[in-house]
Amino acid sequence: MARGMRAELLAVGSELLGPLRAETNTLWLTDRLLEAGVEVAARVTVADDAALLESAFRSALGRADLVIATGGLGPTEDDLTREAAAAALGRGIHRDPAILEALRTRFARYLRQMAAVNEKQADVIEGAVVLPNARGTAPGQRLEQGGRLLFLLPGPPGEMMPMFTEQVLPVVRERAGGAVIRTRVLRIAAMAESDVEQAVAPIYKTFTNPRTTILGAAGQVELHLVAEGRSEAEAEERIEALAAGIRGALPDRIFSEDGRELPDVVAGLLRERKLTLALAESCTGGLLSARLTEVPGASNFLERSFVTYSNRSKIEEVGVDAALIERVGAVSEEVAAAMAAGVRRVAGTDVGVGITGIAGPDGGTPEKPVGLVFVSLDGAAGTRVRRAVFPGARDRVRYQAAQVALEMLRRGLLGLAAL
Amino acid sequence: MARGMRAELLAVGSELLGPLRAETNTLWLTDRLLEAGVEVAARVTVADDAALLESAFRSALGRADLVIATGGLGPTEDDLTREAAAAALGRGIHRDPAILEALRTRFARYLRQMAAVNEKQADVIEGAVVLPNARGTAPGQRLEQGGRLLFLLPGPPGEMMPMFTEQVLPVVRERAGGAVIRTRVLRIAAMAESDVEQAVAPIYKTFTNPRTTILGAAGQVELHLVAEGRSEAEAEERIEALAAGIRGALPDRIFSEDGRELPDVVAGLLRERKLTLALAESCTGGLLSARLTEVPGASNFLERSFVTYSNRSKIEEVGVDAALIERVGAVSEEVAAAMAAGVRRVAGTDVGVGITGIAGPDGGTPEKPVGLVFVSLDGAAGTRVRRAVFPGARDRVRYQAAQVALEMLRRGLLGLAAL
Repeated sequence: MARGMRAELLAVGSELLGPLRAETNTLWLTDRLLEAGVEVAARVTVADDAALLESAFRSALGRADLVIATGGLGPTEDDLTREAAAAALGRGIHRDPAILEALRTRFARYLRQMAAVNEKQADVIEGAVVLPNARGTAPGQRLEQGGRLLFLLPGPPGEMMPMFTEQVLPVVRERAGGAVIRTRVLRIAAMAESDVEQAVAPIYKTFTNPRTTILGAAGQVELHLVAEGRSEAEAEERIEALAAGIRGALPDRIFSEDGRELPDVVAGLLRERKLTLALAESCTGGLLSARLTEVPGASNFLERSFVTYSNRSKIEEVGVDAALIERVGAVSEEVAAAMAAGVRRVAGTDVGVGITGIAGPDGGTPEKPVGLVFVSLDGAAGTRVRRAVFPGARDRVRYQAAQVALEMLRRGLLGLAAL
Repeated sequence: MARGMRAELLAVGSELLGPLRAETNTLWLTDRLLEAGVEVAARVTVADDAALLESAFRSALGRADLVIATGGLGPTEDDLTREAAAAALGRGIHRDPAILEALRTRFARYLRQMAAVNEKQADVIEGAVVLPNARGTAPGQRLEQGGRLLFLLPGPPGEMMPMFTEQVLPVVRERAGGAVIRTRVLRIAAMAESDVEQAVAPIYKTFTNPRTTILGAAGQVELHLVAEGRSEAEAEERIEALAAGIRGALPDRIFSEDGRELPDVVAGLLRERKLTLALAESCTGGLLSARLTEVPGASNFLERSFVTYSNRSKIEEVGVDAALIERVGAVSEEVAAAMAAGVRRVAGTDVGVGITGIAGPDGGTPEKPVGLVFVSLDGAAGTRVRRAVFPGARDRVRYQAAQVALEMLRRGLLGLAAL
């Protein structure tokens, strides 16, 4: 892709460098800028230290076309963004009477006396365009030097985000010259990252625009497509050209291209088809139920679930035969199938799911190792069971088992072949 | 606190600046350095661009005592960390025959031919101490210039973390001169952040060492205490002095000071007391079961759970009286209590929990708004019910409801007064 406008983001505040990990402004800004065709070349989080901050501004202004700083505009002595930016630009600062007046009015509205320390928030760098802040006390500032744009924005996301959207983005868009970036995420469940890579690499490698990144997570692989165009239509067209090729290489395996996660997709299919569901979970311990009921309106399809953690509860609640457990063990294809059929019968639903396995870290044997899971789907079309051995720790085994159950549900509901 | 050694962290890689948000190395390093008495003054994430990287190294070396870069040491043409660091230091690079040999041996072990591109990973900056990498191909490098330390580490956490612990931390500790930082996190559940703040502010404000930060999350408040001392004992003593005061201000409300989350604490209490538990969840949809069974060995105490999402399942599975639901509604104190008592009876456990509520976004009425939840605990000592109205979206309401249930369990098991 052509070298477009390049941005650098500064997040200001010592609290962002502690163990609390609260810095999210730059991530949000990265996404918004990408949509406007601007790539972020560096993100810097910097402590409330005058010399350090000035140096960070100087570095950023030396290498980026657009610099956006968030935070450090408040009234305390730790708030040094204005002073540091002014020093880096080699400009002075003056106290603006109109802002001062607005600050006093704001305090009066809440029946509070304005402490003198707040006056600092009326300080404006020479040549700056002031960006009013409807949601807080500190206004933002827009500056320009040598063709480079610098924005100082408040740190609280509730103030920063609307200020960015309303007062920064239009200026940036105009400056970026109409290059448009579009992204799309293709999601695949219950398939190894290397298998996805092998299937799609021959296709995406023939494209330089869009660029493709493969991201593997537990039980899910994502293909991130990023295309650049002179218009939204062109960028979309480029994305679609590649997406169509990938679809052909992974027939019926992509469960979402619109940002939805697997539980939403399955919930949507159940609602569309007006089908009801009941679950019997053992090793996943309620995780599948919890994920499905995270979707608003889940009560329209989920009738009930059982966490049948003990053998006794498998027998009493979903009618698994005690002799069967005795003969083949609770972690077996047969018991998974009996759980799915049993919960469907007990709850009187259209579909039943049963999951049994060994999440670890203990309980594994050479024949039935930690990670072994059986998932069964029972419905009008019959019973399906899938056996899998998942790598990783307890939480990963559980999550992957839930993903397989969801993908089996999706495929069953769509009438696709078994996994 | 005194100005100690100051670090700057560089995370190298364009993929870290996309919408994927995968950068976690600098967060991990921040924690480890803090424990060693080194404050991180800036964190920089920078794209794979030679000029940009060199500038980032130059800036970092100009202002920090310790610079640690992660990533960009691989074999591809995007891997530019070695070249950029060398340029910023004004030093040359040579190809090290011993590393080259080790690379070839490593490839041979996996029966693979080493592609020529890999030779680049044997490039060493003039004057560098090579840091062997037992877990990957790219070795790290340690450099020193003008009293400042620079480390180049590989990007994959599985390689970076052991290399840091074994080969970086000892050097940093020696250089940091014995200042020791200790942290402790005090956790409180089911209490508003402002109430915690009001109770503890008069205490922690009298301390400058430790420093205290309050962090509010859904259903939980954390007090982060950070103390500095000349020895571990001194730092620990300082932490304990403040923690004792906070304990006094929040009697029996702190559920953990050792890093454990609430499900672990409750699981520990159940195991110690050899008590069994069964759950009947409605609005939380299995979330409480899922969180409790995330703890290894949960099968020792959790007998079974029901997600009684429909009224029919509340009646059929845990014996709630249909006439009661008709009279007072499924979301009521009475039904929560009947669910807790019913599930305890059905499962034959020592303790039963019932949760019913309106998670939203739909289903609220003026009398029973979205966020209204009743949680009941039933055991040998009788029945407790708590009514709460939680703010926020569906996921937050559900999470807070689970937190209240866990805190009620904790208090019940410890024989503490009801919430």
